[in-house]
Amino acid sequence: MTDHTLASPPDQIRLPVQVMYFDTDAGGVVHNIAYLRFIETARTLLAVQLGMSFEDILRTGIHPVVVRTEIDYRRPARLGEHLQIHGKIAEIGRVRFWVEFEILRDTDGTQLVTCRQSLALVQMPEGKPLRVSEGFPSLGKTE
Amino acid sequence: MTDHTLASPPDQIRLPVQVMYFDTDAGGVVHNIAYLRFIETARTLLAVQLGMSFEDILRTGIHPVVVRTEIDYRRPARLGEHLQIHGKIAEIGRVRFWVEFEILRDTDGTQLVTCRQSLALVQMPEGKPLRVSEGFPSLGKTE
Amino acid sequence: MTDHTLASPPDQIRLPVQVMYFDTDAGGVVHNIAYLRFIETARTLLAVQLGMSFEDILRTGIHPVVVRTEIDYRRPARLGEHLQIHGKIAEIGRVRFWVEFEILRDTDGTQLVTCRQSLALVQMPEGKPLRVSEGFPSLGKTE
Amino acid sequence: MTDHTLASPPDQIRLPVQVMYFDTDAGGVVHNIAYLRFIETARTLLAVQLGMSFEDILRTGIHPVVVRTEIDYRRPARLGEHLQIHGKIAEIGRVRFWVEFEILRDTDGTQLVTCRQSLALVQMPEGKPLRVSEGFPSLGKTE
Repeated sequence: MTDHTLASPPDQIRLPVQVMYFDTDAGGVVHNIAYLRFIETARTLLAVQLGMSFEDILRTGIHPVVVRTEIDYRRPARLGEHLQIHGKIAEIGRVRFWVEFEILRDTDGTQLVTCRQSLALVQMPEGKPLRVSEGFPSLGKTE
Repeated sequence: MTDHTLASPPDQIRLPVQVMYFDTDAGGVVHNIAYLRFIETARTLLAVQLGMSFEDILRTGIHPVVVRTEIDYRRPARLGEHLQIHGKIAEIGRVRFWVEFEILRDTDGTQLVTCRQSLALVQMPEGKPLRVSEGFPSLGKTE
Repeated sequence: MTDHTLASPPDQIRLPVQVMYFDTDAGGVVHNIAYLRFIETARTLLAVQLGMSFEDILRTGIHPVVVRTEIDYRRPARLGEHLQIHGKIAEIGRVRFWVEFEILRDTDGTQLVTCRQSLALVQMPEGKPLRVSEGFPSLGKTE
Repeated sequence: MTDHTLASPPDQIRLPVQVMYFDTDAGGVVHNIAYLRFIETARTLLAVQLGMSFEDILRTGIHPVVVRTEIDYRRPARLGEHLQIHGKIAEIGRVRFWVEFEILRDTDGTQLVTCRQSLALVQMPEGKPLRVSEGFPSLGKTE
């Protein structure tokens, strides 16, 4: 789908995000759940970049499903700030793969959030788990 | 969750909600989209109360779909406040029905938000519109 | 009413959005609340473009507040689709201004959603309403 | 670790939730972020129960802030299902405290999600971290 001629490898993603009102709460900073929405978007675009298109998902019913999330909130982001979401494939196992993210403040590169997620591929609507090589064959090619 | 006195007719709903952090924004008050989430919950419980169960929806594929929303934000709600969402069926047409909501501050009954929505019944996944009497027969019984 | 003759006037915004999983629901289409999040983002970027920066908002405590939303859901958007959010300032009154949006499917230009919102400028945390010319002076310059 | 011998100790919470449309996604099941919203609500009500009222938070500016979340998604929940969110204080340190949650399907008690979060107390708007005993003195009383 996308064209990667620069140094950026296909198993990495960089997504710019600006903090909106609905990302913040009455504490004056970004709400902890909003960062996970940013990460969802980055992870989905990374999957598309790696060859798992939405058309394929809807046609085959094979959905990538988050099995575990670990997220550390290190410093707060604030209304209007420009952030960078950096994501990459960290590890590919037989039935799971791991992705890692960090969220940086754009102006000074301060690391705000780090996150690690493991995912499985599930045949919906039955909910049957598949091997990574079976459900997402192009992913193995990045190894 | 719901507060049903015996006098409460089946085409009305009262839902208590307490304002959480994720409902507020950096302005210090409830975000305009959060009120629509409260209304969604009230409307869904009203539909269940009127005989449109989730089991029926999943079995038949007939989903109630919001066609239009009008919402007026009159006064702000704040973190931790207890609210009451009041909803009722306002009008039933051939292919649409209308629901009305108001959101009140619990302590003093101040009206914060009013909302009117029209809905249609749609056969998914085709997206085919149905007559109200065809897709939601128990609704007509409240006329 | 403002006059839109230039190719890219400052009182108009075009925002591309791709539909993510968290924008959809079990009906298989975009949830009605998700469109309002898209519109929030477009409206906020439009305000920035018109000179109401987040820095000004946080410094002065003058927040633009949605007073009324009217939204019509005409056709559904689906997972992975590319949408365009088009927004413009429609009218500027003494204490309110109106913005209009439409959401189009990118591939064929089909209109999915139309929306009209009125806003007021409010001095927080007191909640005191301000005249548009007082709280957002650069907005009047587009008339 | 705290000791849970009483029938309904103040450091435990049980919150019933019914899955709404906006909690689900096009995969037909509850979206991974929605479970964190359920947990947010349970944790906030637990804090209130332990004596950290919203009035205190707004008056003192001392906010409980999530520092880390670990969440395991074990089985999916579906539209309309009744869930139980169980939460408890797991451990209280000098500058952090830990809370644990599990989400159960109401009908058969199946465990769907487990989650562990650590929190700190922060003096806003400066963002200054406080000792738990200083910012939330009633919490220590449950030890």
